[in-house]
Amino acid sequence: MSDASILKRLGEVIATRKGASPESSYVARLFSQGEDAILRKISEEATETVLASKAGDKLQVVRETADLWFHSLVLLAYHGLTPDDVLAELRRREGISGIEERASRQGPAAR
Amino acid sequence: MSDASILKRLGEVIATRKGASPESSYVARLFSQGEDAILRKISEEATETVLASKAGDKLQVVRETADLWFHSLVLLAYHGLTPDDVLAELRRREGISGIEERASRQGPAAR
Amino acid sequence: MSDASILKRLGEVIATRKGASPESSYVARLFSQGEDAILRKISEEATETVLASKAGDKLQVVRETADLWFHSLVLLAYHGLTPDDVLAELRRREGISGIEERASRQGPAAR
Amino acid sequence: MSDASILKRLGEVIATRKGASPESSYVARLFSQGEDAILRKISEEATETVLASKAGDKLQVVRETADLWFHSLVLLAYHGLTPDDVLAELRRREGISGIEERASRQGPAAR
Repeated sequence: MSDASILKRLGEVIATRKGASPESSYVARLFSQGEDAILRKISEEATETVLASKAGDKLQVVRETADLWFHSLVLLAYHGLTPDDVLAELRRREGISGIEERASRQGPAAR
Repeated sequence: MSDASILKRLGEVIATRKGASPESSYVARLFSQGEDAILRKISEEATETVLASKAGDKLQVVRETADLWFHSLVLLAYHGLTPDDVLAELRRREGISGIEERASRQGPAAR
Repeated sequence: MSDASILKRLGEVIATRKGASPESSYVARLFSQGEDAILRKISEEATETVLASKAGDKLQVVRETADLWFHSLVLLAYHGLTPDDVLAELRRREGISGIEERASRQGPAAR
Repeated sequence: MSDASILKRLGEVIATRKGASPESSYVARLFSQGEDAILRKISEEATETVLASKAGDKLQVVRETADLWFHSLVLLAYHGLTPDDVLAELRRREGISGIEERASRQGPAAR
């Protein structure tokens, strides 16, 4: 089973939760609460990732990054998008030249 | 070329940038600036994702999510971790039961 | 000179920057860039405050909190609000009962 | 009653909560949960402020900014600092020259 399939499968399962009863699952409840509830989770999991990193807790970094990616998938589904859309964008930028392109586009990280 | 391979390949390319000259690439410069510089980018890209969503700009949601995942890969590499570690964690939680498990663990999204 | 006056005076100076030429000052430029530019700064300074705290750098905690409050004043002015509006809200909640009221309203901090 | 006094008084009340029984108040519970719990609230309230602004809800902008400043006071007290430390820093930067100094120090807001 390839790595990619888990993102694809999760994206598909999450998409089926749109419009489902809020009581039926965590994701259905999140969709029923609306866009801002999803955005709060994106922000919260980013903060949790930062705190896990500062704690030097690698297992927790993995878990919080998984939470962050998971809620990214929920946001993508909210907008009718799929993980493939993001992976295609990453492929488009791929390669050394692709990574360098980011540098010229964005300049050095702020501060 | 499977979707998964892009994450794996990006993770490998990023890992080779650790210890490289800061002038050699955007990622090498980020590593040379240290953990907090990477964490600022995670936080910044989460905020950009939120703003893209509120703007209803789907293309921008894709781009900012790609930026967020990309900098997640940099943080993973900083800790000697790989995208496979996160994908394995997501697989571990997979399935309806896996998603439901989150609900019982975390309760509904705050507020 | 009372402490309060600095917030009030800053709020007034900031308000005069709305509609001023972007080249005339940092705040005028921020207003000219629009709401999202101000919100990015709120988010960025919150992250800087978190990182300063984790670094145990008290002087930096003071500086980043000052940055966070300063950009809060810019956002208030963007919405035609003043620091007095926020201070009045804090006064309204004041006292032990006021602080306790938050607990009953919000419940314990998540996680 | 001056505006400043509310920040000063809140700072004093909050400081008395350090070491108090977690059951005794919301702030005592936050202190007992530790630094990361306080930092999560700073980050959460910054996000709430962003979402209130995007919703164009001025009353909510005031409330969330009050929440953000309140939890800033808790973080200051955690580090043995006071609101006066932040107000003094803002006074130090005061005046047009002070605000302009930020511009030269930080450059324009990113992006």
